[in-house]
Amino acid sequence: MTNRAWHLTSRPNGLPTMDDFELKAVPAPDLQDGWVRVRNAWLSVDPYMRGRMNDVKSYTPPFALGEPMSGGAVGTVVESRSPHFKEGETVFHMLGWREEAVAPAETFNKVPPLPVEAHQWLGNLGLTGGTAYFGLLRVAEAKEGDIVFVSAAAGAVGSAVVQIAKAKGITVIGSAGGADKCAWVKALGADVAIDYKAGPVLKQLMEAAPQGIDVYFDNVGGEHLDAAFATARQNARFAICGMIEDYNTGSNYAYRYIMRVIGARIMMKGFIYLDFLIQMGDFYRDMGGWIAGGQVTSRETIRDGIEAAPQAFLDLFSGANTGKMLVRL
Amino acid sequence: MTNRAWHLTSRPNGLPTMDDFELKAVPAPDLQDGWVRVRNAWLSVDPYMRGRMNDVKSYTPPFALGEPMSGGAVGTVVESRSPHFKEGETVFHMLGWREEAVAPAETFNKVPPLPVEAHQWLGNLGLTGGTAYFGLLRVAEAKEGDIVFVSAAAGAVGSAVVQIAKAKGITVIGSAGGADKCAWVKALGADVAIDYKAGPVLKQLMEAAPQGIDVYFDNVGGEHLDAAFATARQNARFAICGMIEDYNTGSNYAYRYIMRVIGARIMMKGFIYLDFLIQMGDFYRDMGGWIAGGQVTSRETIRDGIEAAPQAFLDLFSGANTGKMLVRL
Repeated sequence: MTNRAWHLTSRPNGLPTMDDFELKAVPAPDLQDGWVRVRNAWLSVDPYMRGRMNDVKSYTPPFALGEPMSGGAVGTVVESRSPHFKEGETVFHMLGWREEAVAPAETFNKVPPLPVEAHQWLGNLGLTGGTAYFGLLRVAEAKEGDIVFVSAAAGAVGSAVVQIAKAKGITVIGSAGGADKCAWVKALGADVAIDYKAGPVLKQLMEAAPQGIDVYFDNVGGEHLDAAFATARQNARFAICGMIEDYNTGSNYAYRYIMRVIGARIMMKGFIYLDFLIQMGDFYRDMGGWIAGGQVTSRETIRDGIEAAPQAFLDLFSGANTGKMLVRL
Repeated sequence: MTNRAWHLTSRPNGLPTMDDFELKAVPAPDLQDGWVRVRNAWLSVDPYMRGRMNDVKSYTPPFALGEPMSGGAVGTVVESRSPHFKEGETVFHMLGWREEAVAPAETFNKVPPLPVEAHQWLGNLGLTGGTAYFGLLRVAEAKEGDIVFVSAAAGAVGSAVVQIAKAKGITVIGSAGGADKCAWVKALGADVAIDYKAGPVLKQLMEAAPQGIDVYFDNVGGEHLDAAFATARQNARFAICGMIEDYNTGSNYAYRYIMRVIGARIMMKGFIYLDFLIQMGDFYRDMGGWIAGGQVTSRETIRDGIEAAPQAFLDLFSGANTGKMLVRL
């Protein structure tokens, strides 16, 4: 069995390129007492990883140059010197971007007993679904009667936001790029799908919600956030989850409507999934139920082989994915 | 007695000029039953009035073209056909920009029984002090141990924010334009005063608070708000009260650091004084006590005569005032 891992070899300036990454064999150490060896089956690539490629303090520590990268993964225990894990068990953990993870038992989490496919623990039951759930229902406190606007609605997080909103009986407007993605957003149940490539977001949003919006779930920043400022109703709440437009270029959007924060009494709040670990029980209960009941479905864009990981990551920034982007080993 | 009122004769595009205003005599109607006649003694000019000169829906309705303007005022009852008011009583009300206010009794508020000068009801015990109090303590929930940053700290609202923070034992950094204003901000008790005319705000703020800020009280938007994004600590709270930089030019500042909303989990919220009318009892009790105890003082920039009102208003935007700008009739 090979044991290869992707290493970050240089810190990108702007959009990363393949030259910033190198796939190298790494040693397969013997197991220490209390350690576990996991063969990875699925790797997650997520936009937030771009931030980890810079050498700056952020909510996750930066990748170290010349070291294996890390990220969400699901795998199977192939060897255990811990009483907590047996061979053959499925686990999810953060030692991705590699074929084999060898680490102390505390590094790994058994998947809860829900009848779902393994890769769901990287999607609707993992970081992306949890981000959607906590952002929409806890940060923005969306409730029936609200009009929710979500950007990147055909992405992993956005498509979960659309479906959670509909499971809760909330009106939702999703923005996505292109007719195919918009058709999928509508198929997920969105009341309106806006194609941001077909015209200005603000104009389309005003047509979709002449009365304005109550909640904005932000995955992108920039033009979408400004349109949300412009159309916010009184006491609107904005859950700020990502600003993918700015991850490579840095922020420099000239917001024309930010002053409406005052008149509309907008509350905006940044968050990440990890802020809500204490409420994971609620999340598994609700999301598990919606998945079992077919109210929340998923679509994946799957790339095969560890060789494919960096390009899969890079393709997130051109919107090449519909739903969750995954690498299958 | 003359009875003149300022009228808005044209809607300004950008910074207003004297040509947008006209002082005209208005009829002094006989009193209807239940009405009161008040001779104004003090008029307030406030930055928010700029928004009312545009024909757009905002938190206060626009001024009507060719009609007398309105705004905060304090005056004396000179004639009453209401059982609720007697001649000689001091009242505050919103029929400013004129010498005489004639209206139903419900239009006027008796000043609470506190031993303060009449113009205080337009300042530390009125809109400006209330805006500071509710924004700092309710919206941003500032508390001991926090580091608070406030822009326009030598202005009416900002100088109240500095003093309320110190009365509560909170560290406060104030920004103002020029050495004289900064000296006054320090005299009010600010731990550090930043002169935004002397260099970039961000650099000075990082020197003043290397550990970052917990609360930002925003009166100006633009460069100050961006510096606050850049230096916010985890779970920082921003009370957004005004964006005076944008009132005349429209918003178009390119925020470089807005993405830190996510990493630092910043909560930002717009508000106005009127959102907290139900808590005015708390405000009068606390602010009345601080004024009586000398913990909150005020400085006024006073212009004499109703003729001076529009220029006093215009001078707010060049920072000609220290503390509250008032017109004394």
